[in-house]
Amino acid sequence: MLDYGKQILSEQPFSVLLGAELTAFDEGHAELSLAIRDELTQNYGFVHGGVLSYLADNCITFSAASVLGKCVTSEYKINYVRPALGKTLIARSTVLSFGKRQATCECKVYVLGEQGEKLVAVALGTISKIE
Amino acid sequence: MLDYGKQILSEQPFSVLLGAELTAFDEGHAELSLAIRDELTQNYGFVHGGVLSYLADNCITFSAASVLGKCVTSEYKINYVRPALGKTLIARSTVLSFGKRQATCECKVYVLGEQGEKLVAVALGTISKIE
Amino acid sequence: MLDYGKQILSEQPFSVLLGAELTAFDEGHAELSLAIRDELTQNYGFVHGGVLSYLADNCITFSAASVLGKCVTSEYKINYVRPALGKTLIARSTVLSFGKRQATCECKVYVLGEQGEKLVAVALGTISKIE
Amino acid sequence: MLDYGKQILSEQPFSVLLGAELTAFDEGHAELSLAIRDELTQNYGFVHGGVLSYLADNCITFSAASVLGKCVTSEYKINYVRPALGKTLIARSTVLSFGKRQATCECKVYVLGEQGEKLVAVALGTISKIE
Repeated sequence: MLDYGKQILSEQPFSVLLGAELTAFDEGHAELSLAIRDELTQNYGFVHGGVLSYLADNCITFSAASVLGKCVTSEYKINYVRPALGKTLIARSTVLSFGKRQATCECKVYVLGEQGEKLVAVALGTISKIE
Repeated sequence: MLDYGKQILSEQPFSVLLGAELTAFDEGHAELSLAIRDELTQNYGFVHGGVLSYLADNCITFSAASVLGKCVTSEYKINYVRPALGKTLIARSTVLSFGKRQATCECKVYVLGEQGEKLVAVALGTISKIE
Repeated sequence: MLDYGKQILSEQPFSVLLGAELTAFDEGHAELSLAIRDELTQNYGFVHGGVLSYLADNCITFSAASVLGKCVTSEYKINYVRPALGKTLIARSTVLSFGKRQATCECKVYVLGEQGEKLVAVALGTISKIE
Repeated sequence: MLDYGKQILSEQPFSVLLGAELTAFDEGHAELSLAIRDELTQNYGFVHGGVLSYLADNCITFSAASVLGKCVTSEYKINYVRPALGKTLIARSTVLSFGKRQATCECKVYVLGEQGEKLVAVALGTISKIE
């Protein structure tokens, strides 16, 4: 299942551009990681919020895909709780509820640095099955 | 004011990587545009939601900066309403309300193609002044 | 159409308990108003956020119902932008986009007092057709 | 601490009108419960979304108050995941992150019926300290 997920991710040019990797993928869960590099920052030197958003958005779609099959993010909300400074971003998403046509998923994004993992963003969203 | 905004945008490596341009910037408003290219798509050939999110997030921060000064997005929500296929993305943000420390802004993201502009996403968020 | 909408509202016991009235209802739009009374406040004397949420939630469902038929709110986000003090709350919702199964709607909630209308909350949400 | 929280809740006329009770309150957590009655339903016989929203909104404010002191909900998002039918609603909120001026909190709302607890809504929001 992880191999299948990695295949899908490799077919997303934007994910390849950013360098995201699928590091876990099983029923109701997905984990993406991303190496931080200068190109991904904003004018204060932190990882750009758009990168955190991309990661959360993609991660909730993967976790939902584990129960829905082909699907796209319909909407989500993200709270940035701390500036992201470190080596690697890790997003972990869990399906909270799902039916035939959509799933509600949460995602927590952490930055991994010298002091371990720190929460940098939290997201909650709806993913819809493609028919 | 537009020149100052363009300067800030050029200092965001992630915005440079994606190719965003600030096309309007005045009190309470900002407009960003972005040329669509293959690198920005997902596995179904549409612009990746993460790109739309980046654009909305950055655009609401710019509109808020026009009334708050230095600021960062604290949180936002985005609804994807139509797959984004076309030549250019255009995001327009308006400040709905603001105080000394934060602003509430909305943003609409359009795709410009052969049939004119079409709404592809809508966002609503909170931007906090940096002190 | 307004009469039909008023009929539906009168069949919602919670709307009757709060005293909401449907004051406009046409394709893509709905307006609800609510007289403020002490019972609807919180411990600082302002209208309780839950009342503003109720009003926004219900108003987006009505605006969506004008294009979808029977439907329920799937999710929404609300930003409270100013404490609500005054005589009457007025919520106005607009459908931003819709398909066969769901609509994306925004809503602005105003308080009407001696100095006219003031924006107190803004919401954005997804409404799903019931099948 | 629970007694202090119950005192605050009893000073919210809207919470008294709806019948909410604070059933747990400690650092970083709060739990509210609410007996379901006909007055709280909508036209399909389920608990009105506005009641779930009220409960989630109030619960995240209580959990945040446990770490911030006096505070108000600034914004939140809620996903309704299942119609609420049963005897009692239970909302549980946890502080995910907080600083000097605001906290990010999540809340899950359950309905308690003959088959035990079922998740009916999930919320994520920002609570701001009052100064």
